[in-house]
Amino acid sequence: MKERTRKLNLRPVRPAFKLWLKTERGYALGEGGVRLLQEVEKCGSITDAAKSLRMSYRYAWGLVRKIEKNIGTPMLDTYKGGSHGGGGARVTQAGLTIIRKYRALEEEISHILKSNW
Amino acid sequence: MKERTRKLNLRPVRPAFKLWLKTERGYALGEGGVRLLQEVEKCGSITDAAKSLRMSYRYAWGLVRKIEKNIGTPMLDTYKGGSHGGGGARVTQAGLTIIRKYRALEEEISHILKSNW
Repeated sequence: MKERTRKLNLRPVRPAFKLWLKTERGYALGEGGVRLLQEVEKCGSITDAAKSLRMSYRYAWGLVRKIEKNIGTPMLDTYKGGSHGGGGARVTQAGLTIIRKYRALEEEISHILKSNW
Repeated sequence: MKERTRKLNLRPVRPAFKLWLKTERGYALGEGGVRLLQEVEKCGSITDAAKSLRMSYRYAWGLVRKIEKNIGTPMLDTYKGGSHGGGGARVTQAGLTIIRKYRALEEEISHILKSNW
C-alpha cells in the first residue's frame, strides 16, 4: 500500500447544518421564513418587519403567502388602524408554534454539533 | 383583530436537515463525499465505487481530490495490482474518522428530529 506523499496542510474540520420544515408536498419553510415571522411578531407589522430585514414589503408578503400555502394554515392575523394608523399584523398560534419548535430543534442540533464532534 | 378566513387545508409539517463539514475556508464535504468514501472502502477501488454510485471514474476522483484539498489531508491510499490486476484504494485513517463522525452526527440529528418534533 503506497501512501501518497503529497504534502497537505491539515485544516480543522467542523460540522454545519441546515434545518427546514417540509410537508408531503415538499419544502415548506426554513430559516428565512422563520426569521420573517419572528420579526413580524416583534415589530407588529409586515411593513416594519420587512424594513428591518431589508426586504421589500412585496417580497415579505409573498414569502408569508408561500409559507401559508405550503403548510395550509394562516401564519398572520392582520388588522387595520393601530398606533401607526397603517394597521398591523400578529403571528397566529400556528405560526408561533412553528417558530418555537423550529428554534428549539435548531438549538438542540447546535448543541449536539458542539458537544459531539 | 381580523382573522383571515381564507380556507386552507392544514398539512402535517415535519423537520428535515442537511449536514456538511466545513473548514475556515468554507464547505469541505457533505453526504455525496461521505457516501463515495464509504463506497470506496466497501469496494476496495475507486473504479468499482464510481460504478456502484453511477458516477464516472473521472468525477469520483475529482470529488476525492476536492475533499482532500478542502480538508488538507489524504482521504485514500492507492496501490497497484491486487486481485483485479487494476490496483485499488483504501480509505485513510483520517477518512475513516470523517465517515464515522459524520454518520454518528447524522444519526443523532435524525433521532432528535424524530423524538422532539
